[in-house]
Amino acid sequence: MFGTPCYRMADSESDLIPHDPEPRVGLPPGSVVFVGEDRTHSVEFRVLEYGPEHLIETTEERVEEVLKYRDTTPVTWINVSGVHDESVIRTLGDHFHVHPLVQEDIAHTGQRPKHEVHDDYLYLVVKMVYFDDRRDGELRAEQVSLLVGERNIISFQEDPGDVFEPVRKRIRNGRGHIRDRGPDYLAYALLDVIVDHYFVVLEAFGTRTENLEDAIVEEAPSDLEDDIHDLRRDLIFMRRMTWPMREILYQLERLDSPLWADTNQPYVRDTYDHVVQVLDLVEALRDTASGLHDLHMTSISNRMNEIMKVLTIIGTIFIPLTFIAGIYGMNFEYMPELKWTWAYPVVWGLMIILAGVLLLYFRRREWI
Amino acid sequence: MFGTPCYRMADSESDLIPHDPEPRVGLPPGSVVFVGEDRTHSVEFRVLEYGPEHLIETTEERVEEVLKYRDTTPVTWINVSGVHDESVIRTLGDHFHVHPLVQEDIAHTGQRPKHEVHDDYLYLVVKMVYFDDRRDGELRAEQVSLLVGERNIISFQEDPGDVFEPVRKRIRNGRGHIRDRGPDYLAYALLDVIVDHYFVVLEAFGTRTENLEDAIVEEAPSDLEDDIHDLRRDLIFMRRMTWPMREILYQLERLDSPLWADTNQPYVRDTYDHVVQVLDLVEALRDTASGLHDLHMTSISNRMNEIMKVLTIIGTIFIPLTFIAGIYGMNFEYMPELKWTWAYPVVWGLMIILAGVLLLYFRRREWI
Amino acid sequence: MFGTPCYRMADSESDLIPHDPEPRVGLPPGSVVFVGEDRTHSVEFRVLEYGPEHLIETTEERVEEVLKYRDTTPVTWINVSGVHDESVIRTLGDHFHVHPLVQEDIAHTGQRPKHEVHDDYLYLVVKMVYFDDRRDGELRAEQVSLLVGERNIISFQEDPGDVFEPVRKRIRNGRGHIRDRGPDYLAYALLDVIVDHYFVVLEAFGTRTENLEDAIVEEAPSDLEDDIHDLRRDLIFMRRMTWPMREILYQLERLDSPLWADTNQPYVRDTYDHVVQVLDLVEALRDTASGLHDLHMTSISNRMNEIMKVLTIIGTIFIPLTFIAGIYGMNFEYMPELKWTWAYPVVWGLMIILAGVLLLYFRRREWI
Amino acid sequence: MFGTPCYRMADSESDLIPHDPEPRVGLPPGSVVFVGEDRTHSVEFRVLEYGPEHLIETTEERVEEVLKYRDTTPVTWINVSGVHDESVIRTLGDHFHVHPLVQEDIAHTGQRPKHEVHDDYLYLVVKMVYFDDRRDGELRAEQVSLLVGERNIISFQEDPGDVFEPVRKRIRNGRGHIRDRGPDYLAYALLDVIVDHYFVVLEAFGTRTENLEDAIVEEAPSDLEDDIHDLRRDLIFMRRMTWPMREILYQLERLDSPLWADTNQPYVRDTYDHVVQVLDLVEALRDTASGLHDLHMTSISNRMNEIMKVLTIIGTIFIPLTFIAGIYGMNFEYMPELKWTWAYPVVWGLMIILAGVLLLYFRRREWI
Amino acid sequence: MFGTPCYRMADSESDLIPHDPEPRVGLPPGSVVFVGEDRTHSVEFRVLEYGPEHLIETTEERVEEVLKYRDTTPVTWINVSGVHDESVIRTLGDHFHVHPLVQEDIAHTGQRPKHEVHDDYLYLVVKMVYFDDRRDGELRAEQVSLLVGERNIISFQEDPGDVFEPVRKRIRNGRGHIRDRGPDYLAYALLDVIVDHYFVVLEAFGTRTENLEDAIVEEAPSDLEDDIHDLRRDLIFMRRMTWPMREILYQLERLDSPLWADTNQPYVRDTYDHVVQVLDLVEALRDTASGLHDLHMTSISNRMNEIMKVLTIIGTIFIPLTFIAGIYGMNFEYMPELKWTWAYPVVWGLMIILAGVLLLYFRRREWI
Repeated sequence: MFGTPCYRMADSESDLIPHDPEPRVGLPPGSVVFVGEDRTHSVEFRVLEYGPEHLIETTEERVEEVLKYRDTTPVTWINVSGVHDESVIRTLGDHFHVHPLVQEDIAHTGQRPKHEVHDDYLYLVVKMVYFDDRRDGELRAEQVSLLVGERNIISFQEDPGDVFEPVRKRIRNGRGHIRDRGPDYLAYALLDVIVDHYFVVLEAFGTRTENLEDAIVEEAPSDLEDDIHDLRRDLIFMRRMTWPMREILYQLERLDSPLWADTNQPYVRDTYDHVVQVLDLVEALRDTASGLHDLHMTSISNRMNEIMKVLTIIGTIFIPLTFIAGIYGMNFEYMPELKWTWAYPVVWGLMIILAGVLLLYFRRREWI
Repeated sequence: MFGTPCYRMADSESDLIPHDPEPRVGLPPGSVVFVGEDRTHSVEFRVLEYGPEHLIETTEERVEEVLKYRDTTPVTWINVSGVHDESVIRTLGDHFHVHPLVQEDIAHTGQRPKHEVHDDYLYLVVKMVYFDDRRDGELRAEQVSLLVGERNIISFQEDPGDVFEPVRKRIRNGRGHIRDRGPDYLAYALLDVIVDHYFVVLEAFGTRTENLEDAIVEEAPSDLEDDIHDLRRDLIFMRRMTWPMREILYQLERLDSPLWADTNQPYVRDTYDHVVQVLDLVEALRDTASGLHDLHMTSISNRMNEIMKVLTIIGTIFIPLTFIAGIYGMNFEYMPELKWTWAYPVVWGLMIILAGVLLLYFRRREWI
Repeated sequence: MFGTPCYRMADSESDLIPHDPEPRVGLPPGSVVFVGEDRTHSVEFRVLEYGPEHLIETTEERVEEVLKYRDTTPVTWINVSGVHDESVIRTLGDHFHVHPLVQEDIAHTGQRPKHEVHDDYLYLVVKMVYFDDRRDGELRAEQVSLLVGERNIISFQEDPGDVFEPVRKRIRNGRGHIRDRGPDYLAYALLDVIVDHYFVVLEAFGTRTENLEDAIVEEAPSDLEDDIHDLRRDLIFMRRMTWPMREILYQLERLDSPLWADTNQPYVRDTYDHVVQVLDLVEALRDTASGLHDLHMTSISNRMNEIMKVLTIIGTIFIPLTFIAGIYGMNFEYMPELKWTWAYPVVWGLMIILAGVLLLYFRRREWI
Repeated sequence: MFGTPCYRMADSESDLIPHDPEPRVGLPPGSVVFVGEDRTHSVEFRVLEYGPEHLIETTEERVEEVLKYRDTTPVTWINVSGVHDESVIRTLGDHFHVHPLVQEDIAHTGQRPKHEVHDDYLYLVVKMVYFDDRRDGELRAEQVSLLVGERNIISFQEDPGDVFEPVRKRIRNGRGHIRDRGPDYLAYALLDVIVDHYFVVLEAFGTRTENLEDAIVEEAPSDLEDDIHDLRRDLIFMRRMTWPMREILYQLERLDSPLWADTNQPYVRDTYDHVVQVLDLVEALRDTASGLHDLHMTSISNRMNEIMKVLTIIGTIFIPLTFIAGIYGMNFEYMPELKWTWAYPVVWGLMIILAGVLLLYFRRREWI
Repeated sequence: MFGTPCYRMADSESDLIPHDPEPRVGLPPGSVVFVGEDRTHSVEFRVLEYGPEHLIETTEERVEEVLKYRDTTPVTWINVSGVHDESVIRTLGDHFHVHPLVQEDIAHTGQRPKHEVHDDYLYLVVKMVYFDDRRDGELRAEQVSLLVGERNIISFQEDPGDVFEPVRKRIRNGRGHIRDRGPDYLAYALLDVIVDHYFVVLEAFGTRTENLEDAIVEEAPSDLEDDIHDLRRDLIFMRRMTWPMREILYQLERLDSPLWADTNQPYVRDTYDHVVQVLDLVEALRDTASGLHDLHMTSISNRMNEIMKVLTIIGTIFIPLTFIAGIYGMNFEYMPELKWTWAYPVVWGLMIILAGVLLLYFRRREWI
């Protein structure tokens, strides 16, 4: 296993393969060791207890204070922002009877999206993809782990700040069904908001595609291919992040578990449709981006043709003329033409006719 | 979810990714919010009630007046042109017991074609693809939602004007079985006319392919690659629109529902065959368009070769000659040749022989 | 649905998409309207009645005279050459209880190959691919519809002249089992002869591939890429025509129908094997043709290198020499070299040495 | 059906499509007509009768003498080298109760590898691929048909000389289980030795790939692309020959037949593994060969850049210098510089400085 | 079958196809013949006996001394480093009742990864991929065969030195569950550590990809394409090694065998997830590497454009100027301009204006 909390993609470094997996090799399974970038921010716990009639929102700073929320009712959502402190995950995990391998997966942020059905809880790993303003707007994939229990959800994310704010607002406002339903519906809502954010990212890709296309057509500067390459690599990355989501949601929709109410399924189906749409778009964008390369290549070749045409026209006209001038620049004693009165204008005339003929030839070949 | 009512394709903007999905992110599911281009036209309701013996055709302008058609017999087709007015969809939807998520999908025009089987109705989303004369003949994909109930069909489209006129004529003329059958047969007829229109669009693509091919062979101007790229992108778009139709019709043909009579199935099978043919053609056109790029690239390279040949022939003949002329243009005091009487014609002779030898060499290499 | 009776491929027009489907859009299903090229030849009916002991061969010119053959025994093969006369199809179809949608499919010659099992008959659509001598040897795909009943086969083709002559000969000679078997065996024989003709076409493709390869290697004229493109497009076409045949024969082999005897199955299996072989060859030819483009592109680039080498060698040798000649062509009053007695031969010597050095340099880089 | 006994691949002719299938078109099924190259060698029959205790090896020259081996015990292997004599196949086939279609397939050497289970025997068609020393080491695919009965195997090959010698040696030496087992084990042994020979061929391909790669990197002569193209075509051919083997062995391993003992299955599984490995290697080699083209193309472009750089450096330095020399070669009466004493050395100085500046510029751009 | 113990990949030789399989062709199945590189190191046996309470670690040098470990308890891990001594494999194999075909597979190190379920043991073949410091850091795939019995595991590797050290440490330290579990858990641990090492290799590939990308963008030296080609070939190799692992682990997870405890399955599932991740990464890297070629090709073409621009600008400016100078270098007697006082400065002026105009033209076309 390996883990890097983020895949820097917007800059020109290829981070498809995260760094330094080696320290992990050979650890016993279930070792909760954070493998990722150094993080120094302290772990924060945001707890939302709610039911049809009430809502309590708390922020805790120590893991011990969170443990008491295990048996509260009806729905408790504990959001843990930070998985770099292994002791937090171990404490929470043991308290909520989470399998050691699951604890390990939470701490190692290089997981592929997946879902696991355990007796007491569902374990979902998904990737939240967004543009990180703190890092120069680069594309980041943050791992979000969801533990969906009978009465509570624990969500783990790598950094503070997330895309869940709209869900929190809906809980606060009591809009929609969210306050009447259980943790499964909340899990759906969180998945849905993550998937919806894929469209935000894809729109940015769409804009990049448009801009690149315009730039190619307008023969803009020559580092376009880098941009095309970056776009293609980002789309490869996006596909890797979103492809497993399809399987997850397909399985969730068919899930037969007391933890996952049947009334939840139409909503999961809806999110599944969204993911299929995301994949559709990613594939279409990949095809388009691959077409962009062809377009660019042809445009470069066309420009080369233009350049060579200019040189060829100039060369073809003036090289023979210069030769003629060279002829009459020779110093032979017996060159009768040199003595003729009209020789000079006749030579000029010859040169102009020759140039004219060549220009006609180029026009006929549609070079000018 | 996201939604743009149209995918502008015929002009050079890539609208694979529709704009502004963000406002939708995080809304509670079932929120009927129109996401698409601004539209100002008023929503129009065309109602057709018909049976074997009668036909009543009405146009309503207010949604309240449409509600009364719920319980009319035997078949009522309500065509709603305009989904940008959320209140209309909500009013109609609630009156006809349509699930909130379905109402939401009707309003958001970026759906992937799909079908859903509900207890009281089938919900079909398909894409009507046509060239919009109001927008400079550009290719548009308009979302058509069909709600097929026991005695009525409600069809939603984005704009007035559609491809359904032939179906209306058949109802009016009473030609074929259409007046004797139920809403399921009408649904089939609407699907069929939409699929048939794909062929119209594909024919236009076929013509574009032909024209591009001719232009490449005739070495026409150099923005050909843009056209090839546009064609490929439009075909990617076309595939995205038509591919899910196959699944829909496959499922419809196997549908076991009181809403969908068995006598309907041979017709659905027929439309299914058409869709398979459309997909076949789209794939064949994509392969051909990708071959067009190869053809164009080779043709550009060939032209480059032609250009370079001209320069090389001219250069190779005249550069040595100019050198000889330069030699005898030197001003050394002791150059015995300069004094010889026949030197000048001899040099001319030498030059002509040299040029002739080079021309022979080029002829032997088949450059001229 | 749409229909063109032929896909002109051998000339440079892309007819992947047949023309003028629009008139068909919106007709009620089951409308028997011929959609295709204008045809003026009259429809001809060739009837073969045969059994183990007898054979009657007739040619009828009016459809009414054909109707009497419905109840003849044991096997009657009615071959209809011409589907552009809708009344013929309607008359025959109604008389033989053929479903209106099937009648429609017979008349519209743009069908994808398919098979349908009806109660009284099997309906098979296949494509007969051959080189049409009347049209300059171009590749044509003619639609052949087979209606296989209990005691008769009706075959519809678009034009007189077909690939069935060998089957007729076998019936006449009584060779093999054909006279002892029913219409199902005859249907197999017709399918087999159509599939066998695919190999004839593929062989022509193989020869084209060989010729193109030779032409590329011999650096033949530059419209090669058009030919490669044509070949690739024809193979795309060939694949579209043959791919569905595999499915048809696969299903026929598994068909459980009183119309299709079990003893027939080993023969169908044999034809199935042939079709798989055809598809294998088409795919291999497509891969090869795509390799031809690569080969051609490299060969063009190599030739460009050759051209540029010539220019570069000439330019690199003579441009410096011309410069030296230019130096001593200057008219400065104080140029001591001009006065030296041996200056001229020394300059010549210098030039020859310079040219020699450059030639050695080019030899070392293996340019000459 | 069509048939050519060999696919000449090592030379530059594309024989993907064998010649002259036409004569076969329209023959009644079951016609045993040899379709292939002319062959004149006489058919030879090698018979091996063996059991745990005995071994009799005979060579017969007339087919009638072979018929007596039908009822010998325990295992009789009749190897027929030559399928161009139809009467031999018919005589043998009828005597051993072989279906006419199978007899036909034996005679037509263009079969795709396949297997058929009949009541009395298994029929296997496989391709023996080897380098034919008699034909200049070219790659040949010879069709081997195996009829595996209860007590005997008849193997048909096209030419004398095969890859079975090691199996014969094992029978003679009595090494391994081969003498104790039935014809099914012998069939396995023959399949295994054929599959093992694929690796010999693949190794040759591997060597060709290596050599091509070295040649490209060392910028060897320019017909490399032909070789790459040949390699790719041979690999397409190799895949066509080996791909169906996978299916055959997969089916054989699952075969439930009295003719095929269960104890045989681990060995078949082993051969199946080998075939999967062959396919793996073929695919990897195809990917590599396709990468070779890319490598070659880039290498050509790089060389072009080198060539153009030389011309550009020479041109850019000497064209301006020649211009300066040209200036002072003009014959104007009033050119004050011409009179100056130091003008000539000053111009030389200027020229040297200009050349130096340009050289520095090229160095900075890393062109030299 | 064929076998080479290593696939040299890091140097430029393509070893996709190992050498010299021929000697193996035709050996009776079950012949334990080492096929691979010459090896001279002596075979070493490391034995670990352990249980919850005890641990005995021994190193044996003679195979006879190893035989006694068959019936020890509870878990015995015999690690054999060296499969080039056939007698060792035969002795061990016969003693532990291993099928002859399995013994053969152990000795032939060119196996595809696979698993086989026998009555008394599981047989697993996997590939340990690592960078071999003894061979200049080249990538090697060493075959590891595991025989998992009820109370013991025998692991065979080709060379001393492996990636198992972390597992040995865990056994020695008693960390995790490893001391409490049976051989199945040890087998899992060994598989897991092998799969984890794939990530180490992939990270190196990631770094190579990054470096290549940087080099292309910075227009570094021109053997980049070789490196890209090597990277692609190594990835093809990596895929061939890892792809079958997925199948193996998928089957192991579903394995119903007394040798493979159910409690083991979550761990196998974990390793399965890792393998899927490895494959994901390999595919993403392949797509990226293929994009690198496109990037490189475009970058070469761009550089060519740069080179040609320089030549064209210089040529286009100075060739006409040189022509003008040539004109006034002619020696005609009647050239009135030559006599004019201001002719020389006027010509200079003309030349400067002409050069200026051309420079403006180039600026407007954005060439400079």
